[in-house]
Amino acid sequence: MSTPLPKELRDLVESGPLAHLSTVNLDGSPQVSVIWIGLAGDDVVSGHLTWNRKLRNMSRDQRVVLSFDAPRDRAVFLNEHAVLRARATIEPTDQAWDLLNRLTKVYMSAEKEFPAPRTSGYIVRYAIERIGGVGPWTRQT
Amino acid sequence: MSTPLPKELRDLVESGPLAHLSTVNLDGSPQVSVIWIGLAGDDVVSGHLTWNRKLRNMSRDQRVVLSFDAPRDRAVFLNEHAVLRARATIEPTDQAWDLLNRLTKVYMSAEKEFPAPRTSGYIVRYAIERIGGVGPWTRQT
Repeated sequence: MSTPLPKELRDLVESGPLAHLSTVNLDGSPQVSVIWIGLAGDDVVSGHLTWNRKLRNMSRDQRVVLSFDAPRDRAVFLNEHAVLRARATIEPTDQAWDLLNRLTKVYMSAEKEFPAPRTSGYIVRYAIERIGGVGPWTRQT
Repeated sequence: MSTPLPKELRDLVESGPLAHLSTVNLDGSPQVSVIWIGLAGDDVVSGHLTWNRKLRNMSRDQRVVLSFDAPRDRAVFLNEHAVLRARATIEPTDQAWDLLNRLTKVYMSAEKEFPAPRTSGYIVRYAIERIGGVGPWTRQT
């Protein structure tokens, strides 16, 4: 079901980009949170320890967008970036902290531990439906 | 009506961050485009030369979110970023190209010209309703 990610996009996700997660509020307005993301096999995933607004929004409507920048290059007209339309599935799990701790090594540094106490939480899996933006992931090859 | 931007946030906008503009599609799903933004007096503005989906969405529902990253700092837990809830107003104008050309100097370099032919277009003004994210713009002072 999910669109496979090209290697360049997998590499970008694994480099630890700040991901802008767009959901829609109950009143129909857009909601954005900046989150950490990672890969779990072929899936893009995120980890959460609290049941907050973005999770409530995704539990009501699976349709989300994840967007993030490639490293900045001011020589190009519009900097490379990815815009991924996806369907989000929330899984309650006691592995959310482990995912967040793994991502801490990517987003911060290898010796860092995730700073919050270990507790159960949620892992969100994003089934990618459309890959957009500007970059090798949108160019015809 | 618009919430004034603290100096640190004005400085970030004027540094040329890649702005993720979140709108809502007719079918209720989120839509994201990465755009250039700038300041015009106290307003955040963007320029557009074609009537595309994000403009159609904003003409139907003014409620948008602009979100963008501060420069990356891997020493902090969650990188500074801004999430601005706003109401967008679209103005047809022959000044859109001039705005885009001004932003080209910020987003690319001082000697660059906006690469598209000069034509009329649209300037979008964002009346900021709520400033969120992580940074000095959200901390109590």
